[in-house]
Amino acid sequence: MQVAVPLYSQFTALDAVGPYEVLSRVPGVEVVFVGARRGPVDADVGSLALHADALYSEVVEPDVVVVPGGPGQHRAMEDERLLAWLRAVDAGTTWTTSVCTGSLLLAAAGLLAGRRATTHWLALEQLAEFGVEPTSERVVFDGKYVTAAGVSSGIDMALALVGRVAGDTVAQAVQLGIEYDPQPPYGAGSPGKAPGEVVALLESMRSMILTGA
Amino acid sequence: MQVAVPLYSQFTALDAVGPYEVLSRVPGVEVVFVGARRGPVDADVGSLALHADALYSEVVEPDVVVVPGGPGQHRAMEDERLLAWLRAVDAGTTWTTSVCTGSLLLAAAGLLAGRRATTHWLALEQLAEFGVEPTSERVVFDGKYVTAAGVSSGIDMALALVGRVAGDTVAQAVQLGIEYDPQPPYGAGSPGKAPGEVVALLESMRSMILTGA
Repeated sequence: MQVAVPLYSQFTALDAVGPYEVLSRVPGVEVVFVGARRGPVDADVGSLALHADALYSEVVEPDVVVVPGGPGQHRAMEDERLLAWLRAVDAGTTWTTSVCTGSLLLAAAGLLAGRRATTHWLALEQLAEFGVEPTSERVVFDGKYVTAAGVSSGIDMALALVGRVAGDTVAQAVQLGIEYDPQPPYGAGSPGKAPGEVVALLESMRSMILTGA
Repeated sequence: MQVAVPLYSQFTALDAVGPYEVLSRVPGVEVVFVGARRGPVDADVGSLALHADALYSEVVEPDVVVVPGGPGQHRAMEDERLLAWLRAVDAGTTWTTSVCTGSLLLAAAGLLAGRRATTHWLALEQLAEFGVEPTSERVVFDGKYVTAAGVSSGIDMALALVGRVAGDTVAQAVQLGIEYDPQPPYGAGSPGKAPGEVVALLESMRSMILTGA
C-alpha cells in the first residue's frame, strides 16, 4: 500500500511526520514524500526541512493521500499543480486524508463539498466557505475522506486509519511501538479546555498562525 | 535560546520532530539540527530524511540538547565523535534531554550515571547497564537531565520543558497551537495497558525495533 504525503513550502512538520511515523510501521506500507521538486522542502518554523523523494508526476496512483497543513497552505491554495494532483490521485485512492489546515487544500480542490470535515480549530470557519460542514471532532471519517484537527491530531487519525486497513491488533502494536500513551502536562489542548487568556492569545495570532503573515 | 538536535543515520523521526514542533514555537528559541555532515540524514523507516543544517563543530554552546532515539542509536553508541560532542556541549547546557533510546546515548557518554532516567519500554534494562536507575515514568526530570519514554513521549517532555523555561501560559499556548488534545483510538500505549498478545508481539521484535537487525 502506497501512502503519498505532498510537501509544500511552509508546511507543518508534525502534520506530516505524525502520520508517517504511524503508517510506515505497518507491514506492506510505503510512505512517499512528494513535491514539485525533489529535495528539501522547508517546514514552517526554524530551519527544518524534509526531503521530497518523488515528483507529483511520479506518484500517480497512491492508495492513500495524507495532506499536511501549515501556514504555507494559504499560498498552496493557489498552486494549481498541487490541486490538480490532489484531484487526479483522489480518483484512485482508497483513503484521502488531511491533518490540520490540509483539509482546506482538499476543500479547495473540490473534494470535500457536502461532507463533514475538520481542521485546526482556528480555521473551522474557513472550511464552511467551501461548502463543507465543519465539525470540531478530532478525527472525522466521511466515506473515504478522513480529516484531522490541528497538528498533533494526525497521530490519532493515522492510528484510526491503521485500524481500518490492517485491523485492531496491528494498530495497537504500532501504538505500543511508538509508546503513544499521552500524558500532556497541561490540559490546554483544545479551545474548550484551555484557559480563556490562552485561547484569546492564540486568536489574536490567528493570521500569523494560519498564513505566516 | 538555542536547542540542538543531533541527527544520526536511522534515528526515529518523531523523536526529533515532536520536541522540535513544541520548542520551536516558543519566542526566542532556535532549534538547530546537527550532524556529522550537512544535508539529509535518513530516518529509520522508509525514505524520510531530515536535513542537518549545522556540523557538530559549529554548534558548541547550545542551551538545550535533545537526543532522539531509534534503531540507529545502536551503532551511534560507537560513534566517538557524537559521544564526545555530547560530553562537550553538556558542560554548558541548561538542559540535556533525550527521547526514547536517545537516553542510551547520553548514558554511553557517561552523563546519566547515578541518575534516574527513562527510555523506550523495551530498552529499560539496557539503561541499568550504565549505572542508571531506570524508571518507566513517561518524563523524568533529574537535575538538568530530562529523559522521555518511547517516540511520542517527546511531545510531553518538550511541553514540560517549555513550562520550566518559559512558564505555564506559554506552554499552554503551544499546546493549544498544536491542538494537543490526544484521543488515541486504542488504549494500548504502554505495556501495562496493551493486550498481552500485543506486548508479546513487540517483545518478539525487540532486536529489530531497537537495532534494526
